[in-house]
Amino acid sequence: MRITIIGSGNVATHLAAAFKNAGHRVVQVYSPNIHNAALLAYHVGADGIGSLKDINVETDIIVVAIKDDAIKEIIPSLLPYGKLVVHTSGAVGLQALTDHTANAGVFYPLQTFSKTKELNFGDVPMCIEGADETITKQLEELARTISNNVYRVNSAQRKILHLSAVFACNFTNHLYAVAEGLLKEHDMPFDMLRPLILETADKIKAHSPATVQTGPAARKDEQTMQAHLNMLEGREDLQQIYLLLSQDIIKNSNVPHGDK
Amino acid sequence: MRITIIGSGNVATHLAAAFKNAGHRVVQVYSPNIHNAALLAYHVGADGIGSLKDINVETDIIVVAIKDDAIKEIIPSLLPYGKLVVHTSGAVGLQALTDHTANAGVFYPLQTFSKTKELNFGDVPMCIEGADETITKQLEELARTISNNVYRVNSAQRKILHLSAVFACNFTNHLYAVAEGLLKEHDMPFDMLRPLILETADKIKAHSPATVQTGPAARKDEQTMQAHLNMLEGREDLQQIYLLLSQDIIKNSNVPHGDK
Repeated sequence: MRITIIGSGNVATHLAAAFKNAGHRVVQVYSPNIHNAALLAYHVGADGIGSLKDINVETDIIVVAIKDDAIKEIIPSLLPYGKLVVHTSGAVGLQALTDHTANAGVFYPLQTFSKTKELNFGDVPMCIEGADETITKQLEELARTISNNVYRVNSAQRKILHLSAVFACNFTNHLYAVAEGLLKEHDMPFDMLRPLILETADKIKAHSPATVQTGPAARKDEQTMQAHLNMLEGREDLQQIYLLLSQDIIKNSNVPHGDK
Repeated sequence: MRITIIGSGNVATHLAAAFKNAGHRVVQVYSPNIHNAALLAYHVGADGIGSLKDINVETDIIVVAIKDDAIKEIIPSLLPYGKLVVHTSGAVGLQALTDHTANAGVFYPLQTFSKTKELNFGDVPMCIEGADETITKQLEELARTISNNVYRVNSAQRKILHLSAVFACNFTNHLYAVAEGLLKEHDMPFDMLRPLILETADKIKAHSPATVQTGPAARKDEQTMQAHLNMLEGREDLQQIYLLLSQDIIKNSNVPHGDK
């Protein structure tokens, strides 16, 4: 397919590369910053443009990969071309597009992207929604050329998915940062915790996380929990996080199975 | 070395296997449940015993790998043999042993273990503390035969390490479980989140987590955070966790660097 990319951030960068690697033709990359547009365009053999008026009509789909709150503003400028328009956001409904055009869909890659970190796009769950069945099928087909994990997800589900990702990714990373801070204060390198973090994530490849919960709260080990809270004295924020998460674990824990 | 293992749980199981693989001789495995003792003993070519009175004096070190609150009780029964005694707990001080004997140390593997999941023990950080320099060196030497990550860690540091591990491992896994629950309620499989979870952990192999924080809180995106809180209406526990972690991210966030 001939694809136009709106945006030059992390999602745009990884999607453009995935499209190109799958044999599609990335026609143009747009960014209000023409330098950024040109840089990404260069990497995927496309033309960089700095104005939406320069969009080439010789394209099949316009993929909008920009900040959530900028999506609504940009859509009217894309309508004159009469092409299929999709956005790539987890938090924005399909309606943000269908309010303007029926030729619309969502093409949401459920992953955390950094420009500087390569990843295997074939594993990225692609969440697809089309304004009608024909569009949905078309997007599914396109998604399957770049990923082995393609799901049909409606707008309500996608919002839940995005919320879940905040818990599983953003909040999780913050807990890594909290741990890093505690070690630093006591002259220990974060390297000491890296194997544990990787193993914790690795475990859920084959297990439901609820069934492999471990630690003082899962064991209802009041003594250790109290000792930990005492160690956090003067750090009310961390005490609160400790208490709240421990209470939630206790509330949700079934019979411990002996893992430690 | 000739090694006696007290316990037959997850830590005992993985340590015994690591010792055997490194060419040490596991002499005996003790468990009050002789069946459990015999099973682990069988796997590592040792004898299983169900009574502490049957400990063979032909050993060099007694490794106590049992529940934290059982350590103090069991130590007196091990003293008559006059051997080096170490425990493997992150939360228990060295003093729990040195109150009884100067021939003591700590041999703490900082990892989450399941009996049913193999792992590469060479990566497991081994945290060592001896009652004196000779013992510390001896334990370091032993640790290096089974792991490439050996650290000297005193009792105060080890407690912090254990606390940090609760944040980075136990609490993290609970957040995975929260996400799993949200997806389930909306008919989506947890499989959809697995790649994101693995990538989130993978990212910190090369980065400090504080520097790669992403998500609505890191972007100070009030609109998305409010939408998420609304979606969690009726789930006060999750709303509280969402608020508290978001506030802590906002408080600790420096300039966002554009990752999404």
